[in-house]
Amino acid sequence: MPARDTAPTAAAPTQLGRARAGDARALARLISLVENQSPQVRSVIRDLLPHAGGARIIGLTGAPGVGKSTVTGALVGAFRAAGRRVAVLAIDPTSPFTGGALLGDRIRMQDHATDDQVFIRSMASRGHLGGLATAAPQAIRVLDAAGFELIIIETVGVGQDEVEVASYADSVAVLLAPGLGDSVQAAKAGVLEIADLFVVNKADKPDAQQVVRDIRTMLALAERARGDWKPPVIATVATNGPNDKGIAELVTRLEAHWSWLSSSGRLERRRRARAREEITALAVASLRARLDTRCADELADRVAAGALDPFQAADELLARQTG
Amino acid sequence: MPARDTAPTAAAPTQLGRARAGDARALARLISLVENQSPQVRSVIRDLLPHAGGARIIGLTGAPGVGKSTVTGALVGAFRAAGRRVAVLAIDPTSPFTGGALLGDRIRMQDHATDDQVFIRSMASRGHLGGLATAAPQAIRVLDAAGFELIIIETVGVGQDEVEVASYADSVAVLLAPGLGDSVQAAKAGVLEIADLFVVNKADKPDAQQVVRDIRTMLALAERARGDWKPPVIATVATNGPNDKGIAELVTRLEAHWSWLSSSGRLERRRRARAREEITALAVASLRARLDTRCADELADRVAAGALDPFQAADELLARQTG
Repeated sequence: MPARDTAPTAAAPTQLGRARAGDARALARLISLVENQSPQVRSVIRDLLPHAGGARIIGLTGAPGVGKSTVTGALVGAFRAAGRRVAVLAIDPTSPFTGGALLGDRIRMQDHATDDQVFIRSMASRGHLGGLATAAPQAIRVLDAAGFELIIIETVGVGQDEVEVASYADSVAVLLAPGLGDSVQAAKAGVLEIADLFVVNKADKPDAQQVVRDIRTMLALAERARGDWKPPVIATVATNGPNDKGIAELVTRLEAHWSWLSSSGRLERRRRARAREEITALAVASLRARLDTRCADELADRVAAGALDPFQAADELLARQTG
Repeated sequence: MPARDTAPTAAAPTQLGRARAGDARALARLISLVENQSPQVRSVIRDLLPHAGGARIIGLTGAPGVGKSTVTGALVGAFRAAGRRVAVLAIDPTSPFTGGALLGDRIRMQDHATDDQVFIRSMASRGHLGGLATAAPQAIRVLDAAGFELIIIETVGVGQDEVEVASYADSVAVLLAPGLGDSVQAAKAGVLEIADLFVVNKADKPDAQQVVRDIRTMLALAERARGDWKPPVIATVATNGPNDKGIAELVTRLEAHWSWLSSSGRLERRRRARAREEITALAVASLRARLDTRCADELADRVAAGALDPFQAADELLARQTG
């Protein structure tokens, strides 16, 4: 069967083959295709589909300053010590304007920069053509097909986008730390209900025990039923050095969650829900692309002038939908 | 002309009339209609359109713990002292699970709870049928039509949703504070490029001057051109008491930004861009509602099993689009 788009389709399996063999540059190029929503993405994803599905995906989320990168670095260290290949996808709300900002965090993970069994990549959450909702699952699929056993998705945990990304994971760990506003503020983050595990980092600081107690009280009040899984609360001191505390327990609890997911049938359910999200996001992006932008501009002028109500404007925009 | 939906259309002007006359309960009911995306929203918005457009909208955003509610409270106090009617719309990422969390913050604003020239309302950013992108501009329009001269939109500033909401405002103030992670973290928030003003709150704390310097350096590096407006950096200590510092300067700078917006033609451009966002969001929400959910479930099963690629699945979903 002749390929419709010969060049990319021919190139992609080679890239994938090289990425699967451990070529970090080939892997980075595949992720860039996804990030830029290149036209080749479709064929790349099709080609790697048979190789995907084996990875275990861990989401790590929390407000700025709780120490996400340090905990991620410590987790990578623990998984590497157990001989496993690990990929980190750091979802960064960084925009073109603040493009340099993510460097600081990545530097904290440079212990692993020379380990070819570790792949670390930042992905901006803004300025995407298709939006993060379409790009993130594709990037995860690329890492999965490239043969990483563990994929850690690190996100900043305040806001809808980040909560959505965290929900792509099999296990979601929510990080908190003392001294970052009161517990009420932490609860406002809106990430509590997606947590499979709570990590109270910087547990050597004053008030850390108070944060642990507050989470427990909140969980008790909410009487959450997630099947028979009760989110554990783990205190850690992540330094990426020999004085790390609680990381071994975190790994143990993650393993326990994974066993529970697999044996309870929840893993399948989560992955089905994730696929549904992805399909819907792709469909909506495609519908959105069909809207006539010049027409939207004209209608916006009339709405801004108070001459047209926004609902009528939306109706008109849909009526003139192209494609 | 007979009304299509008699009851709601007949009731709405009365509610609006009462809200315009200062009836807080009528106003609250109108906002609830919007928040719940009730079927009456269309007619409510149509009826209030002629009364909207006069309000000045101030966005206040920042990470958890920087003191947004306290600064908002202090601003409300300053505007009230100048005899102006003020509404506050606090966009809260609170979910049903953490529903109680917003109380803590609202309590900090209770100084104004008995002032009938001040209206304070929280709005959840999650669990909306139409999404925040459609509900927030409608809520703003309701407050605008109800005759508030100033509307303060307070959002948690990490994540795409919050950035979007802040962009509904005429002037956006980004709040930072010392001691909440380093400046790199602050930059990661992705809100810097939308800032018309920077407020460094808790300026009495150590390192506050460092935060001020960091922002200035970042602004200089970025060489931002926003017409001839250069975002000022204002140091504040907000306590909602007689020892407030910097709030008067914040008000002065906000006035200056408003004058600049009005005289430079930027105000019109922003409001047009805002209307465009709103129309597109409404159109996309309506397209999304036409997708066949049962079909999406079936397709998700096949994608999760690796039997179908997500792009083909999205195509199939669109092909079976209803309506």
